[in-house]
Amino acid sequence: MAAPSGFLSFIDQNAGRFIQRLADAVSIQSISGNGVYRQDVFKMALWLQGQLDTLGVQTKSVDLGRHVMDGQDLPLPPAILGRIGDDPKKKTVLIYGHYDVQPAEKSDGWDTEPFTLAVDPATDRLIGRGSTDDKGPILGWLNVLEAHKALGLDLPVNLKFCFEGMEESGSDGLDELITSEVAKGKDGWFWGVDCVCISDNYWLNARTPCITYGLRGIAYFNLTVSGPARDLHSGAFGRTVHEPMTDLVLLMSKLVDTNGKILVPGVDEMVSVASQEEKALYAQLDYSVADVENAVGAPIALSDDKVEVLMGRMRYPSLSLHGIDGGAGAKTVIPASVSGKFSIRLVPPQTPEAVEPLVFAYINAEFARLNSKNKLKIENLHGGKPWVADHNHWNYEAAKRVTEAVYKQTPNLTRGGGSIPVTLTFAESLGVNVLLLPMGRGDDGAHSANEKLDKSNFIEGSKLLGTYLYEVGAVNA
Amino acid sequence: MAAPSGFLSFIDQNAGRFIQRLADAVSIQSISGNGVYRQDVFKMALWLQGQLDTLGVQTKSVDLGRHVMDGQDLPLPPAILGRIGDDPKKKTVLIYGHYDVQPAEKSDGWDTEPFTLAVDPATDRLIGRGSTDDKGPILGWLNVLEAHKALGLDLPVNLKFCFEGMEESGSDGLDELITSEVAKGKDGWFWGVDCVCISDNYWLNARTPCITYGLRGIAYFNLTVSGPARDLHSGAFGRTVHEPMTDLVLLMSKLVDTNGKILVPGVDEMVSVASQEEKALYAQLDYSVADVENAVGAPIALSDDKVEVLMGRMRYPSLSLHGIDGGAGAKTVIPASVSGKFSIRLVPPQTPEAVEPLVFAYINAEFARLNSKNKLKIENLHGGKPWVADHNHWNYEAAKRVTEAVYKQTPNLTRGGGSIPVTLTFAESLGVNVLLLPMGRGDDGAHSANEKLDKSNFIEGSKLLGTYLYEVGAVNA
Repeated sequence: MAAPSGFLSFIDQNAGRFIQRLADAVSIQSISGNGVYRQDVFKMALWLQGQLDTLGVQTKSVDLGRHVMDGQDLPLPPAILGRIGDDPKKKTVLIYGHYDVQPAEKSDGWDTEPFTLAVDPATDRLIGRGSTDDKGPILGWLNVLEAHKALGLDLPVNLKFCFEGMEESGSDGLDELITSEVAKGKDGWFWGVDCVCISDNYWLNARTPCITYGLRGIAYFNLTVSGPARDLHSGAFGRTVHEPMTDLVLLMSKLVDTNGKILVPGVDEMVSVASQEEKALYAQLDYSVADVENAVGAPIALSDDKVEVLMGRMRYPSLSLHGIDGGAGAKTVIPASVSGKFSIRLVPPQTPEAVEPLVFAYINAEFARLNSKNKLKIENLHGGKPWVADHNHWNYEAAKRVTEAVYKQTPNLTRGGGSIPVTLTFAESLGVNVLLLPMGRGDDGAHSANEKLDKSNFIEGSKLLGTYLYEVGAVNA
Repeated sequence: MAAPSGFLSFIDQNAGRFIQRLADAVSIQSISGNGVYRQDVFKMALWLQGQLDTLGVQTKSVDLGRHVMDGQDLPLPPAILGRIGDDPKKKTVLIYGHYDVQPAEKSDGWDTEPFTLAVDPATDRLIGRGSTDDKGPILGWLNVLEAHKALGLDLPVNLKFCFEGMEESGSDGLDELITSEVAKGKDGWFWGVDCVCISDNYWLNARTPCITYGLRGIAYFNLTVSGPARDLHSGAFGRTVHEPMTDLVLLMSKLVDTNGKILVPGVDEMVSVASQEEKALYAQLDYSVADVENAVGAPIALSDDKVEVLMGRMRYPSLSLHGIDGGAGAKTVIPASVSGKFSIRLVPPQTPEAVEPLVFAYINAEFARLNSKNKLKIENLHGGKPWVADHNHWNYEAAKRVTEAVYKQTPNLTRGGGSIPVTLTFAESLGVNVLLLPMGRGDDGAHSANEKLDKSNFIEGSKLLGTYLYEVGAVNA
């Protein structure tokens, strides 16, 4: 069912104000990963709750307790829950989003101040931290609510909201909240939800809208090799003792090859080989190797075959080395203790629990082969299972129709490379279909310098989210 | 010739004041490797020149120009030159030392404030940055001068001094100063020098004095691998592009094995195999594997064979990986550009010039084998040749007699693992014998937290340096 034309034109007519509201949201430095900004995350929670209240949503701010981060004991940002509409004849849609953001400093390579939304007149891009991840999409929902309130229109569905402030830092406390609410049965906040819609990912490229039915999971590891009691002078001790950095680099070199093949035995092998039929689905997607190379800004794709590149992201696991701590800086030092971080993105049927013993056994065996007298510690820092939804469900059929209506384009039906663990929590604990309906484009640079959301994606994306509610409202299922 | 007994007892009687002077010197944070402290390095130069002036030394402070460090244009600390005595019938000894120190922060693991000299009453250790490297030894010479001045004793030799403030950061400007002075012939500052004595290294262990006739050189490299134009999200791009960190870790894993064997073809092979006769010399040294393990604080020696451990430090090259910059910190990032630092300590007949092409060719070949689309840059950041002196020279014979006189012990005759490039400059440009006569012990922890100099080494070491001048003064050669 099409959205009322009054709704669509209200969105167009109020674009300027909506962008100003996004600028207000971006200006709050709600960085969850650095305790220095914890007050700002709380400020952002209050701001968001205030917006929802004004738009007629019944809200509550849920204290999620405390946690320890980098040795600091901190209060967790609250979950902001909301609901509007309680008509038993209407479907109930649960909306999820997160109001926290990644860190950003001008010196990271930003051309503008990261927490001052810049509108580039040449490209109509809205540039700022959180513009696309995930403040823009959250504000898309606010735009929909505002249009309906201003126009005196009834919403076509009942809405529930769940917004969190720790997504960029492990979603601490959220799973517990969801499962405890679900355990309350009819008295729980999520009772009666028919489907879930999450707008927290991106198109596959910069031109074709997409709908996403799968995400990779993650298993995140830290290796520490220690030897001497203190840093050593490499002149005095080079070639007299086992050096921790040598051992760590040797271990990390055994994990993945330059072509992305995972060398931990059994990890790649857990995943089925793609059939010709499955490959044909990837071949249909509007995508080219040039898309990934444009997105990363360099001709470094692992393959010249678009299907291989897409499968590398969507249906194969990946292993990335994130960094080595210890030593750098001081010029001629043998660092006493060094740590290396790496993570594996998981796809079905992989789980963190299934992968961890393979990783531990392999690294322990490789370390034993070194015959070093240094000490090794392996830690599994955190993990999340992969998720794949039924993309023939009415929730997805609705999203396809909406995308065609708003963008006049057939959406790419994709699986994402990243991980949003709450997706799986909703799917498993509520037992309903979960849809990822992205607002931003593949070149938005979430987590990078100069993160942006195209103005057209913000405005047409707001129409997309509103129209989606009408399509879901019209489903007879 | 023995030193006058008055000299020796003066040193003992004034130990308290000498330690106070060391505390004054340590309190000046003359860190050459961080531009923030450049004023303090200049302050230390002035302090040292003032001390020399007071003790009757004719000094001059030589401006060495400017340099760029970490993007900052800075004035180089001056060389403090000095001379005392001009008797053509006496030998002339040139003394070198450095008044700059390594960085130190309490948070690096110091038990006390690094720039406040602490005297541990239980161990009689003098703890503080620069105590052993190299303020203690410089002050040893001041103690000798003060004793002679106070007692009205003539020095047995003419002395020249050359103290620099950039030793910990590449000795910028010093080689140019020495060669330009030498080029002045009779008018040059170093004209007439018969031998050089440098006290800027350490005993092999914590119980046996030593004399050092060789040092390793160094060749210092930086590898940079870059790919994407910006940091990437490992979920969105893992297994779609060549990752710089994967390539860099693979390259660095090819450089050295856990047992210290250098894997760059031709580097280890440049060095002759030790004969049984040479091994016998190492076997004679008062040293055990426990010494190195005590010094590093962990049982991580590469061998249970003392001779192998000693040769690893003294007559084999070593390759240490110092650190990898880029990426660490941000949790799930594919860093766009990463750099790895490593250095090779060189022994004769190796030179930086001979080793560099082997390193470049090997790394380029290994990178080509990866078949990565990322970009590699190799830089040779700095280098210095190894140095070996004739330890049968009268300068060494004098040092052996002195050590036996002061410590009643036969000194270990060693080659050092570290690099003091100026040693070679003096040897080559002045054409005289250079002696390394250490004051501190092998467990002093130069460059580490809790750097210390034993009080007995400071006091007996001052006697050692003074007595050395008498032995040299008595040589007929």
